[in-house]
Amino acid sequence: MGLELYLDLLSQPCRSIYIFARTNNIPFEFKHVELFKDSVLGKKPAAAASGAERPRTGPSNSEGAGKISLLKKVPALKDGDFTLAECTAILLYLSRKYNTPDHWYPSDIKKRAQVDEYLSWHHANIRANAPKTMWIKVLIPLFTGQPLPSEKLQEVMEGLSASLKQFEERFLQDKAFIIGSEISLADLVAIVELMQPVGVGCDIFEDRPRLMEWRKRVEEAVGKELFFQAHEMILNVKELSNIQIDPQLKEHLAPVLMKMLK
Amino acid sequence: MGLELYLDLLSQPCRSIYIFARTNNIPFEFKHVELFKDSVLGKKPAAAASGAERPRTGPSNSEGAGKISLLKKVPALKDGDFTLAECTAILLYLSRKYNTPDHWYPSDIKKRAQVDEYLSWHHANIRANAPKTMWIKVLIPLFTGQPLPSEKLQEVMEGLSASLKQFEERFLQDKAFIIGSEISLADLVAIVELMQPVGVGCDIFEDRPRLMEWRKRVEEAVGKELFFQAHEMILNVKELSNIQIDPQLKEHLAPVLMKMLK
Repeated sequence: MGLELYLDLLSQPCRSIYIFARTNNIPFEFKHVELFKDSVLGKKPAAAASGAERPRTGPSNSEGAGKISLLKKVPALKDGDFTLAECTAILLYLSRKYNTPDHWYPSDIKKRAQVDEYLSWHHANIRANAPKTMWIKVLIPLFTGQPLPSEKLQEVMEGLSASLKQFEERFLQDKAFIIGSEISLADLVAIVELMQPVGVGCDIFEDRPRLMEWRKRVEEAVGKELFFQAHEMILNVKELSNIQIDPQLKEHLAPVLMKMLK
Repeated sequence: MGLELYLDLLSQPCRSIYIFARTNNIPFEFKHVELFKDSVLGKKPAAAASGAERPRTGPSNSEGAGKISLLKKVPALKDGDFTLAECTAILLYLSRKYNTPDHWYPSDIKKRAQVDEYLSWHHANIRANAPKTMWIKVLIPLFTGQPLPSEKLQEVMEGLSASLKQFEERFLQDKAFIIGSEISLADLVAIVELMQPVGVGCDIFEDRPRLMEWRKRVEEAVGKELFFQAHEMILNVKELSNIQIDPQLKEHLAPVLMKMLK
């Protein structure tokens, strides 16, 4: 049994793994998981049993987190009898096992440390803010049947702006990519997250020319066709509003989400 | 100029770096930073200029995050003209540069992937919950002059319990350490975070014998004396309530913290 990747391209960590595997010609079986369609409350998919982590597409307050873990677990990797969760861990495993080009995770210890530094910073900054736009604009209304007050989105956009300012000033600076002249895992992990707001109509690239130029370089580096194929669903607003949600999951999560909004 | 580490042992990521460097006999100059005493609003310490990240001791909602970045930046590493922030990045850099024993970050790609998996999961789970106990029980009252309603602590403890359940069932299982029979960076990053609640009177080890046994093994592995030296301040409640806070910082943060509590 070869490499299997359990992915839903609606989820940004899944997209980074998909793009990384495809752009590096890593052979894998694409196991398509639909995050919200059949929750783990219903039929348990293989990926859920693999010990993989809940998708980090959503809110993470203490109460919400427990309930949201009812969702299916993606991304997940199965390689024979070895299973692995967590986007960063999967990307690093693939880079080591398939000996991908050095620039993705440079052997130079200082450059490698800079990739690690970004990947760690990313969690509490870009990742803590960008995905909330999709929850606020699409998912919570789908779950609860109610639109959200605009202050909620404004609050999230302010947090995201502060993170983007740091991203540009501290990480990107005047370089082509985060660690210099070549693309690394840091750029890939960042770009998939920053496409999430774009998909729901919050185009954070619009007034940020430096960020937009970087995005274009990332698209070129992985291949435009692959980039847009991976983002097809997220960039299709009509398709987003048709996301199917398991009724049991809806019933469980709606009250939690409503409470979070108060 | 040799290796310099900018640390405040009140901060859990700083403690993991301190313990790692000391237990591996890595020579470094300890640059003592007092997180709250002189904020970057006042005198700018060297570490703040190094591009290091804000301490992740505190709340991370979108508004709070921006304001809390006014705090000093620890941990930070300076190695000649190379500077680095982020706990995980610093630990990995030290392990590579000083070629520390393999068990810390095993060369076996599956074991290494398991360390990466934990380090990534940690961010949104243990790290997202455990430090809040200190903010709620000590720091916010120090900043605002007001104690917090007990529901706040209860909410955080519930989130932490859910994370600890996952930690035990998914990561620790029946093993001595997270990835098997030897200690790794995963255990170190976990333990320092889990000592934060203990310091403020929420002994999460009390009713969790498996977790307590693991803690004892971690203490033995790094050396009990070093372990307790690193945790001396956090385990001394009297000292905690004497933490000095820069008046300017207090003035800036108090209203943000008050708003977060509503």
